[in-house]
Amino acid sequence: MFAYARDVFYYETDQMGVVHHSNFIRWLEEARIAFFTHTGLSYAHMETLGVLSPIINCNVQYKYFARFGDHFTVRLQIPKYTGVRFQVHYTVVNQNQTILLEGETAHAFVNTQYRPISLAKAAPDLHNILKNYVTHQQQ
Amino acid sequence: MFAYARDVFYYETDQMGVVHHSNFIRWLEEARIAFFTHTGLSYAHMETLGVLSPIINCNVQYKYFARFGDHFTVRLQIPKYTGVRFQVHYTVVNQNQTILLEGETAHAFVNTQYRPISLAKAAPDLHNILKNYVTHQQQ
Amino acid sequence: MFAYARDVFYYETDQMGVVHHSNFIRWLEEARIAFFTHTGLSYAHMETLGVLSPIINCNVQYKYFARFGDHFTVRLQIPKYTGVRFQVHYTVVNQNQTILLEGETAHAFVNTQYRPISLAKAAPDLHNILKNYVTHQQQ
Amino acid sequence: MFAYARDVFYYETDQMGVVHHSNFIRWLEEARIAFFTHTGLSYAHMETLGVLSPIINCNVQYKYFARFGDHFTVRLQIPKYTGVRFQVHYTVVNQNQTILLEGETAHAFVNTQYRPISLAKAAPDLHNILKNYVTHQQQ
Repeated sequence: MFAYARDVFYYETDQMGVVHHSNFIRWLEEARIAFFTHTGLSYAHMETLGVLSPIINCNVQYKYFARFGDHFTVRLQIPKYTGVRFQVHYTVVNQNQTILLEGETAHAFVNTQYRPISLAKAAPDLHNILKNYVTHQQQ
Repeated sequence: MFAYARDVFYYETDQMGVVHHSNFIRWLEEARIAFFTHTGLSYAHMETLGVLSPIINCNVQYKYFARFGDHFTVRLQIPKYTGVRFQVHYTVVNQNQTILLEGETAHAFVNTQYRPISLAKAAPDLHNILKNYVTHQQQ
Repeated sequence: MFAYARDVFYYETDQMGVVHHSNFIRWLEEARIAFFTHTGLSYAHMETLGVLSPIINCNVQYKYFARFGDHFTVRLQIPKYTGVRFQVHYTVVNQNQTILLEGETAHAFVNTQYRPISLAKAAPDLHNILKNYVTHQQQ
Repeated sequence: MFAYARDVFYYETDQMGVVHHSNFIRWLEEARIAFFTHTGLSYAHMETLGVLSPIINCNVQYKYFARFGDHFTVRLQIPKYTGVRFQVHYTVVNQNQTILLEGETAHAFVNTQYRPISLAKAAPDLHNILKNYVTHQQQ
């Protein structure tokens, strides 16, 4: 399980006095990219190879408010990867371990013309890295 | 069915050359608030009454890219309202009627201490308005 | 004088209960792009020609708060254009004509390698359009 | 001189392939708040005391592009503080020490009704802290 953490930014709050819900979606991306960097599967490198990875689904449950002054942690894992698509599961908690968000995103791989591609074919080394991080199912 | 439309803003794009996916979530809010204003159920008025309406779930499918130069329309309806929570369904299309996003959000009503409340009790007139907009099921 | 107007979005507010100051900078861009579209000098078209127009200076005075529920208008004019750079002056007002912001941005033209270029040479027709909109000085 | 640093986020880029200029304004705020936290003058604490600190001026020169993959540092100092207003000067550099931005913001102190107040009177201890950080002029 990979973890990414930082403080809430002031400009992420709205007039309800809490972090605007759209910013959680950005936090998930920050965590996803940090995870990729951590694995060696860097986004910047993928884009150099002409491989883009657009989001195709986002399903999140907002559990609790985040406030300015909070420090959040995104824990993520890859429950599924098919060579063509992958799924990421996230749990976001605050400094008290209160769960703020639980959810999943799904992503495809496309080329620069936005045509779906197989990462396994387009970048076998990246494929092997990602495959390795898929959460091992319980036996 | 209510529709909300505007042009894509330049700053909503990312280096993939398309609108960043987090901004679609903001478009849904723009549409939701425009809908509420349209019905007379204004957010600003609700907040004056001490009624906040945080999001509790967001489940969206990204179907197609949006680009700078595009003009998008969000069509929304309220498939469900229980007096305590409501659900909104969205279809976002571009100027060619290509579907960009399909999805749903769910929302609760809370007071300024973020305790769940019944809109039916806290603001019966707003309750009656919202009730009236729930999509009528086909018989 | 060109004018661009819209309602404040909820997600543009912060926990101070007013629009976050960074969003005004985005409003100026919205207005600038709407102005360019209006003149026929579309950003999208310029970028097709390989002409980018990065900001090089931003100097704004924040005069009054903007709130959710407000409707703002950006009035802009081009006080200066040299063929290589241009300056835009903005006055942002709310629905009561209260001035929210007064300020200027300056912009260059660059090619896709971010090397400075002369619009006069790179796109003479666009140059002629822009030249035409420079505010006429009082005699 | 105080320094604040982090990596560029993907969602901060635009279709020009570089960080959108409005996000630099947010970086300055991140740095300013980190500085305040560092000094013990926390924003969160100030807001608890009913002291808000809106921006009144922003004047920045954009010197060079920031890209996804870059790591930026904001160096800031307080050239001026009058008890009622303060000024912050920023230099933003990337990992190669290339200057990305140079500029200043000015801020007032107001109460929750947005009336100007003297920090010296409203919160003498915070006043003393801030006074202490004003850049010492060369003799």
